[in-house]
Amino acid sequence: MLEDKNQKKTSIAELGEFGLIEHLTKDIQITQESTIKSIGDDAAVLDFNNKKVVVSTDLLIEGVHFDLAYMPLKHLGYKAVVVNISDICAMNATATQITVSIAVSNRFPLEALEEFYEGVKFAAKTYNVDIVGGDTTSSQKGLVISITAIGESNLDDITYRSGAQPTDLLVVTGDVGAAYMGLQVLEREKQVFQVNPNNQPDLEQYSYLIERQLKPEARKDIKELLSKLEVKPTSMIDISDGLSSEVLHICKQSSVGCNLYEDKIPADPQLINVCEEFNIDITTIALSGGEDYELLFTIKMEDFDKIKANPNFSIIGHMVEEKEGVHLITRANTKIKLKARGWNALSED
Amino acid sequence: MLEDKNQKKTSIAELGEFGLIEHLTKDIQITQESTIKSIGDDAAVLDFNNKKVVVSTDLLIEGVHFDLAYMPLKHLGYKAVVVNISDICAMNATATQITVSIAVSNRFPLEALEEFYEGVKFAAKTYNVDIVGGDTTSSQKGLVISITAIGESNLDDITYRSGAQPTDLLVVTGDVGAAYMGLQVLEREKQVFQVNPNNQPDLEQYSYLIERQLKPEARKDIKELLSKLEVKPTSMIDISDGLSSEVLHICKQSSVGCNLYEDKIPADPQLINVCEEFNIDITTIALSGGEDYELLFTIKMEDFDKIKANPNFSIIGHMVEEKEGVHLITRANTKIKLKARGWNALSED
Repeated sequence: MLEDKNQKKTSIAELGEFGLIEHLTKDIQITQESTIKSIGDDAAVLDFNNKKVVVSTDLLIEGVHFDLAYMPLKHLGYKAVVVNISDICAMNATATQITVSIAVSNRFPLEALEEFYEGVKFAAKTYNVDIVGGDTTSSQKGLVISITAIGESNLDDITYRSGAQPTDLLVVTGDVGAAYMGLQVLEREKQVFQVNPNNQPDLEQYSYLIERQLKPEARKDIKELLSKLEVKPTSMIDISDGLSSEVLHICKQSSVGCNLYEDKIPADPQLINVCEEFNIDITTIALSGGEDYELLFTIKMEDFDKIKANPNFSIIGHMVEEKEGVHLITRANTKIKLKARGWNALSED
Repeated sequence: MLEDKNQKKTSIAELGEFGLIEHLTKDIQITQESTIKSIGDDAAVLDFNNKKVVVSTDLLIEGVHFDLAYMPLKHLGYKAVVVNISDICAMNATATQITVSIAVSNRFPLEALEEFYEGVKFAAKTYNVDIVGGDTTSSQKGLVISITAIGESNLDDITYRSGAQPTDLLVVTGDVGAAYMGLQVLEREKQVFQVNPNNQPDLEQYSYLIERQLKPEARKDIKELLSKLEVKPTSMIDISDGLSSEVLHICKQSSVGCNLYEDKIPADPQLINVCEEFNIDITTIALSGGEDYELLFTIKMEDFDKIKANPNFSIIGHMVEEKEGVHLITRANTKIKLKARGWNALSED
C-alpha cells in the first residue's frame, strides 16, 4: 500500500479525528479568489459574484473502483480529484474548489493517508482548485473516497448534454481506449506477481496505457482552446464510461441520432500494438473502454474549418435525425447499431 | 431492513446503474430559484446571484455511524440529509441544494433503496432543498452515504466559529443529551430482541429520546428567529459531537475562554428519568452525548434582553479571556476544566 515499504507506520487512532484532519490539511494553500472561508468551520463559504456555480460529486470504493494492489495511494488521490474535475470540464466550466471525504479501516496507517493526500494536493495544485472541506472517518472495510467538485462559468458558456442538433459534427479530444487496456495490463501483471513475486515486469512498452489508467488528466485546457478558436460546443460530456455510452447519452438527451465512423476514432499506437498482443478488437475497446476522461462534444457544421486541422481534436461523426438511430459506420462501410457498453456493445442492426 | 418484511425484493442488477439512478430520482421536484440544472448532466448548475455560497459534506458508514438493526432506512435517509443541513444552519445560512451519493452491497434490494430515498426526499421537502446530483454505485460491504449540502446567505449574516468575544453570552437552542440516550435505549432493546425475538418492547416512555436519535431535525428556524429578534450571533456551531466538544471548538477558534453553568444546561424531563433508570450522570450525557443538532452560539451581552424570555433559547454561560480557560461551574459551585468529550470528559482542575 505504501510506496516505501520500510516506512514508519503510525496508527490513526493516536491522532483522533480532529487531530487527523488538522494533520492532513495543515499545509493546504488557498488560491481561488472565490474561496472566502475554507476548512475549519461547519461549512466552506464561496463567492462567485455573478458567475454560475457548477457542482458534481463521485463516490469511489476500494475493490469496486480501484485496487490498491497496483494503484499507488498517491496516484489514487490524484485520480480521484481528476475524475471529478473532468465532470466540471464537461460542463465547459472551470473547476475552482473541491471537498475530499475519506473513510478508512484500521489497516491504513497515517502514512498511507499522507500519501493519498499528497496526490490530492498535487492534483489541486495542478488544476488550480482549492480544497475547502471534507470529512475523515473510519470504515468497516477498505477505503471509501467521496469528492465533490465545484466550478464556475458564465451562463453563456455552460454546455449541457442536451444541445446537439442534427447535422452537428461529433468531436472527441485526444485518444480513447488506452486507460482500459492499461488496466488489463496491470491486471495481468498482478496475476504474474501472485505466481512469482520475484518477477520484475518490463512495462516500458505499456507506459502510455498504464499512465492513462493510473494518472489520467482532465481536459481543463479545452474550454480555453475552444474559446480561442471561437467555437461554442452545442453539447458536451466527458468519457468516463466509454465512447459508445457517452454518444448514446448525448443522443438521448439531445433527441438526435448519430453516425459514428470507426476509421475516425483516434487510438494511440501503443493501444494498437497491445490490442494485437491481447488479440482484442481495438474498436470494441475504444467504444467500451471508459476512464479516458477525454471530452466528447458536438459543434455546428460551419465550425468545421476552425477545428479540422487541430491536433487536439478528431471529428468522428455527425448527428442525424433521432428516427435514424445511433450507428457505427464500420471500415467495411456496414452500419451497426450502437449499444450502451460492455463486451456486447455491438449487435447487427 | 425493510419496513414491510413481506415486500417484493428486486435485485439492483436488473436495472443497471443508469436505470437505478433514473428510477430513484424520476419524481424529484425542483423548487429553488437558484437551481438552473439538476440531475442528469455531468454536473448541476446553480445561480446564487450576489449571495455567498456555503458548502458542507459528510460521509456516513454502516456499522460506524448507523446500525440498520434499529434504524429504518427511511429514517436514515431523512437523518443523513438533516445532519448536513444542520451544518449549513450552523453558518447562519439557508440550505438550498443537496447531492446524495450511495454505495450499496448486493444484500440491498431495490425496495431498500426506495425506502432510503423516500426519507431523503421527505427531508428535502421538509427543509425546502433541491436534490441536484449524486452518485449510485456498489460497495463491497454495507451501505455508504455521502451527502453534500449547499446553502446561501448574505455575507453579513454568515457566522463563523471564530467570532466570540470575552463577555459574550453562550446560548444553546432546545435541549441536549436526548439523542445519545435514545441510542442507549435502542442498543438495550436490540440486545433484548436478540435474546427473545418475541418480546414486544414498550418504548412509550422513551419516545422523545428515540425520536431525537432516529429523526433529528436541523434548526432551520433559528436564522429567521434571530433575525426577527435583531440579534446577530458572534459565533455559531451545531451540536454533532457533544456540547463540551463544541464549546471547546468555539473557544479555540475564537481565542476565548468560557464559564459554562451546569444548572443552566437544558435537559428534557424524559432524559432526566432515563438517566436515573440507567444510573448515569445527566451532565456527562448532556456534555458528551452528541447528535442533538441543536445550535450553540454566542451573542453580545447587550442582546441579553432580546433572548432571555424566549423558550427556544437557554443562556448557559459566558465567554471569558482565553487565559482563564474553559470551565464547567457545577451546581456545587466548583470549577471543573472542560475536556473534549467521551466518558472522561471531565477532570478536576
